[in-house]
Amino acid sequence: MEKLVECVPNFSEGRRQEVIDAIVDEIRNVQGIKLLDVQSDKNHNRTVITFVGEPQSAKLAAFKACVKATELIDMEKHKGEHRRIGATDVIPFVPVWGVTMDECVQLANELSQEIAEKLNIPVYLYQEAAKIPTRKRLPDVKKFEYEDLKTEINKPERHPDYGPPHLHPTAGATAVGARDFLYIAYNINLDTHDVKIAKKIANAIRETKGGYKYVRAMGVKLEDRNIVQVTINMLNFKETPLYRVFETVKSEAARYGVNVIGSEIVGLAPLQAFLDVAEFYLRLEGFERRQVFEDNFWQ
Amino acid sequence: MEKLVECVPNFSEGRRQEVIDAIVDEIRNVQGIKLLDVQSDKNHNRTVITFVGEPQSAKLAAFKACVKATELIDMEKHKGEHRRIGATDVIPFVPVWGVTMDECVQLANELSQEIAEKLNIPVYLYQEAAKIPTRKRLPDVKKFEYEDLKTEINKPERHPDYGPPHLHPTAGATAVGARDFLYIAYNINLDTHDVKIAKKIANAIRETKGGYKYVRAMGVKLEDRNIVQVTINMLNFKETPLYRVFETVKSEAARYGVNVIGSEIVGLAPLQAFLDVAEFYLRLEGFERRQVFEDNFWQ
Repeated sequence: MEKLVECVPNFSEGRRQEVIDAIVDEIRNVQGIKLLDVQSDKNHNRTVITFVGEPQSAKLAAFKACVKATELIDMEKHKGEHRRIGATDVIPFVPVWGVTMDECVQLANELSQEIAEKLNIPVYLYQEAAKIPTRKRLPDVKKFEYEDLKTEINKPERHPDYGPPHLHPTAGATAVGARDFLYIAYNINLDTHDVKIAKKIANAIRETKGGYKYVRAMGVKLEDRNIVQVTINMLNFKETPLYRVFETVKSEAARYGVNVIGSEIVGLAPLQAFLDVAEFYLRLEGFERRQVFEDNFWQ
Repeated sequence: MEKLVECVPNFSEGRRQEVIDAIVDEIRNVQGIKLLDVQSDKNHNRTVITFVGEPQSAKLAAFKACVKATELIDMEKHKGEHRRIGATDVIPFVPVWGVTMDECVQLANELSQEIAEKLNIPVYLYQEAAKIPTRKRLPDVKKFEYEDLKTEINKPERHPDYGPPHLHPTAGATAVGARDFLYIAYNINLDTHDVKIAKKIANAIRETKGGYKYVRAMGVKLEDRNIVQVTINMLNFKETPLYRVFETVKSEAARYGVNVIGSEIVGLAPLQAFLDVAEFYLRLEGFERRQVFEDNFWQ
């Protein structure tokens, strides 16, 4: 394949398997698309799908999945820990090979226009695709959740980049963006049922509260396990590595007598992120990536 | 490539760059060979070369390198921390794709015969290629170093599997073997100049002293850094993982008030070994290898 784009749409459904399957099938059935991962979380009531393909195939797959989600998900009935604005909540494009960020921004614009025109859903462009500086950060785009966005969208500063200035009655709104390959969605679980502790730790590591520059984080409750979670977006694992965030969370948790019982990578992460972790903990000297046997045999 | 074998010959020269280059060039110039790594250690006075290719190409490259090492390395003048029996010290073959262990054993036999007949060097077959059970373990094959092997080789139980029952006057002897992909050469460095501590820690982790089943280890001094090292052969990183050995060495070192200042992977190691380390330290839940983005794009 000459050009490869990664697409990681997030849908507001993590419980009804038949709905998840129907959305996944739309993606899988597009020619030239390689489905890499489907990760559903019941607490967040959210599914993260990762796939790759040539730019136009990726756009088609994303649109078809969005059509299906619009058909099957009713935001009036949706509840979940994760902050969300619509049935198809976010769609980021990531340049992988032979594709520039500008091409991904272009792709985001084309898809947004199609979603707005054909499905009548308001679309916000975020991150590298943002047209308005205050929409660069996804948390700012998602400042108001579906319920509040119903009225907030009427304000001129909340008007979407594409589509009508009002929510779709069941699918809400969608954020479409372009971001680079260094992003990782990462969760750290704590053995307490006190969500305040998770929130305090999230504040300790997130940029906006004086934490790490490339970290966004929230504290949430995992009802089914009766524990809490620091749910994190790592925007650049090279500048702010997984191990540093993990160790900081561990140290902050200890202050409350709480333990880190596990962590999870949501979707996929680049090989280098895992190697950085191994290099850190084993205190590797003079390590080079080509020492990973398989790394000499990429496609 | 339909069949791929890895070969990791070790040569008793880690200081004279022109000798190392000449040996490496012999390998690099064989058609169909992909050179993956060259790692020289001045203290061990040893170079580990990693390359892959189809079985017959790998055999040819190993033989040519052995010819060059025989020409340029004089064991009468060699000194180094690592235990060694000859100029071309060991040559293991590793099945990678489309090749069985039996084929690697066959390859080891063919190469041994060629080295014995054309270079008049005695050859011992070890590990999976061993003809004699007591030669399965490389440490047993290398029980006597070059200097002592001169007389020990006269004893019937030390007669080589191929070649004359006496050492080559300058190149000594060679061990040729076949081993599986799960092997890793690994060193851990300690901030003390007391080699006794490294030896005690080596004893704590090695199988023969009650340690981990798949671990062989020695304590050596790194003269140029004035520190000591636990130098380890991990025979099966799936059964005895890197992190477990690392943590045990750290804990044993603490008992002497000594710190682990670093560790190093010699040559290459499989991706899974690094992922296991990341999974352990980050306490990853539900992690699957396909979550490594690039792992979906092997050749």
